[in-house]
Amino acid sequence: MAKLYFRHGPMDSAKTLNLLAVAHNYRSQGKRVRLLKPRLDDRFGDASIASRAGLEAKADLLLDHDTKLDPADFVGVDCLLVDEAQFLSTAVVEQLRQLTKEPGFPVICYGLRTDFRTRLFEGSRRLLELADSIEEVKVTCQFCNRKAILNLRLADGGAPSLDGDQIELGGNERYAPVCFNCYDARFSVSGLG
Amino acid sequence: MAKLYFRHGPMDSAKTLNLLAVAHNYRSQGKRVRLLKPRLDDRFGDASIASRAGLEAKADLLLDHDTKLDPADFVGVDCLLVDEAQFLSTAVVEQLRQLTKEPGFPVICYGLRTDFRTRLFEGSRRLLELADSIEEVKVTCQFCNRKAILNLRLADGGAPSLDGDQIELGGNERYAPVCFNCYDARFSVSGLG
Amino acid sequence: MAKLYFRHGPMDSAKTLNLLAVAHNYRSQGKRVRLLKPRLDDRFGDASIASRAGLEAKADLLLDHDTKLDPADFVGVDCLLVDEAQFLSTAVVEQLRQLTKEPGFPVICYGLRTDFRTRLFEGSRRLLELADSIEEVKVTCQFCNRKAILNLRLADGGAPSLDGDQIELGGNERYAPVCFNCYDARFSVSGLG
Amino acid sequence: MAKLYFRHGPMDSAKTLNLLAVAHNYRSQGKRVRLLKPRLDDRFGDASIASRAGLEAKADLLLDHDTKLDPADFVGVDCLLVDEAQFLSTAVVEQLRQLTKEPGFPVICYGLRTDFRTRLFEGSRRLLELADSIEEVKVTCQFCNRKAILNLRLADGGAPSLDGDQIELGGNERYAPVCFNCYDARFSVSGLG
Repeated sequence: MAKLYFRHGPMDSAKTLNLLAVAHNYRSQGKRVRLLKPRLDDRFGDASIASRAGLEAKADLLLDHDTKLDPADFVGVDCLLVDEAQFLSTAVVEQLRQLTKEPGFPVICYGLRTDFRTRLFEGSRRLLELADSIEEVKVTCQFCNRKAILNLRLADGGAPSLDGDQIELGGNERYAPVCFNCYDARFSVSGLG
Repeated sequence: MAKLYFRHGPMDSAKTLNLLAVAHNYRSQGKRVRLLKPRLDDRFGDASIASRAGLEAKADLLLDHDTKLDPADFVGVDCLLVDEAQFLSTAVVEQLRQLTKEPGFPVICYGLRTDFRTRLFEGSRRLLELADSIEEVKVTCQFCNRKAILNLRLADGGAPSLDGDQIELGGNERYAPVCFNCYDARFSVSGLG
Repeated sequence: MAKLYFRHGPMDSAKTLNLLAVAHNYRSQGKRVRLLKPRLDDRFGDASIASRAGLEAKADLLLDHDTKLDPADFVGVDCLLVDEAQFLSTAVVEQLRQLTKEPGFPVICYGLRTDFRTRLFEGSRRLLELADSIEEVKVTCQFCNRKAILNLRLADGGAPSLDGDQIELGGNERYAPVCFNCYDARFSVSGLG
Repeated sequence: MAKLYFRHGPMDSAKTLNLLAVAHNYRSQGKRVRLLKPRLDDRFGDASIASRAGLEAKADLLLDHDTKLDPADFVGVDCLLVDEAQFLSTAVVEQLRQLTKEPGFPVICYGLRTDFRTRLFEGSRRLLELADSIEEVKVTCQFCNRKAILNLRLADGGAPSLDGDQIELGGNERYAPVCFNCYDARFSVSGLG
């Protein structure tokens, strides 16, 4: 049995660059990887998997909440890489988990742990429940030099905000990676209920 | 700022022994630790923190869902250790997180990641959202030699079961640590909704 | 192929208790483990593997520098656990590595990373070269609350000392786990050549 | 006190890309990083730190075996990143370790663990002795899908070779990342003495 990995990190931790590095490594060894991402992440164009640090690739498959994966489509694949995995549905995570079974291959999912209210996303929740390996992609807090673990949403003008839907796409003008201390100084975590 | 740790592992992974070893280390250095656990875990007597491998200690404080922790009670403490942390309430986890703030001390929580239906507990959910460090206590699957990540509930007679409440206390006659493969062979994870 | 693990930690980090917990877990699942240690560690009696926190077991095999391991002696074994692995010879580490090959089993070695002069031991050096997985057993510094990574030797009377042979057996009256800062304040690491 | 990190991985594990991602993250937060590398690595031009996956930056400082680092040159720095750290001298590693002391900053070193004969380099040895955190950058074996931990040197024509000096610069035409099994099938590790 192969493994299911969840590599989580806050905004701007270079998760996508990390994913593209793994894809590059597999391919330079003559191995076959497939890149997947949720369809709703269309910031860089529907099928683009782009890192702000400079690299880019094309997703082989876009995932919807009700996508049915066909194992026959993955015969001969050595590794499956999923970007923005926090947006996956429970059902899709469970199908990815099934793909690791004999004769299977590793599935490596990159994504946020929590939203701007410190709550798990649907996809990150199911990944934290089912992953064989939970690994961290690290970045420092925007406001100090501690490690960031949470994400702050910034309103127009840059002020921190608790308003809006759980999912609003945006980059580093819209979200900042922060440590617990710097988050809690703005919005008390105890009050988030 | 000190750190909040979540050290998760399936049933019978020696989490409690690990906790008692950390307590022993602090104390042999002349440092002060406090041991906490949820009140509902009364398997070994209300205030006992006991490992099946052989060591035991007394909890300094039992935690209820609505416990209000008073920081004044923890002045001078070097480390706080929490057993069976999956059973903590969201509110108690948030208070533990607050205790790590300046002048704070590390809080190390040991607990299960998921229940017998592969779902997070209330406490493990909030810990996975707020912990600075997510670490794994490892044990092999009861049925093969892969690493276990899930917990199987056993009915009387030892047959695997999906019946009953999320929380039913029990030891290794009632639960078995299993890998995804051995769990899924009994209850398809895709069918758990 | 199974894996070779090196779980390193400074003095008094409860490495042996950790080892005994793993042995207990395997045995409570009806699996076969074998406990090994270098013969030269005779602090608790030749064949005893004892943790200062309270548990104890008997070593199945004592290892000398020139021991030749016979794979036939390990048929049916599920896991091999080695205590005080820093004292192993290069040749013995290489034989342990060979035992992980098909049809093999995991070999988990516990030991110190460095001696009281901040230098690798023969066994820890070869393990750091050949291990699939390098993991840390943590303990805080004797003098502050940072993580310890080095070992200070204490002379009679408790004063730190750089004198003597690399190997002089002793417990927490003879060695103290320390962080870099607290070590370097006593003996400048730059001056150790 | 800040931490000293050693992030090791075999050839072609994208260590440099990882380093450049960390540099990018610090800089996009308005923080100051300094990039260092040993002078002897001149594959991409003296001062270039280049990843085969596509990104590149300029080293701020080239390190010789007898370089004396002046802490005054690093005032206000938030993080120091070192590439090809296996080639550092013991003395330079010890100076980097000193830079983490109060008021210090984190030093993150990327490098190979071992050479093509499975032996530590001078720099990786001292880093494994003194690092607070030993982390792994992963890549699969060139010949199978297990994780690689060793490096095979390839002679002209591509045949594996044990000949030559410890240090001969080269890329993926000259070295291949391999697992223990695939290495040992070519050169028995027990015979390497």
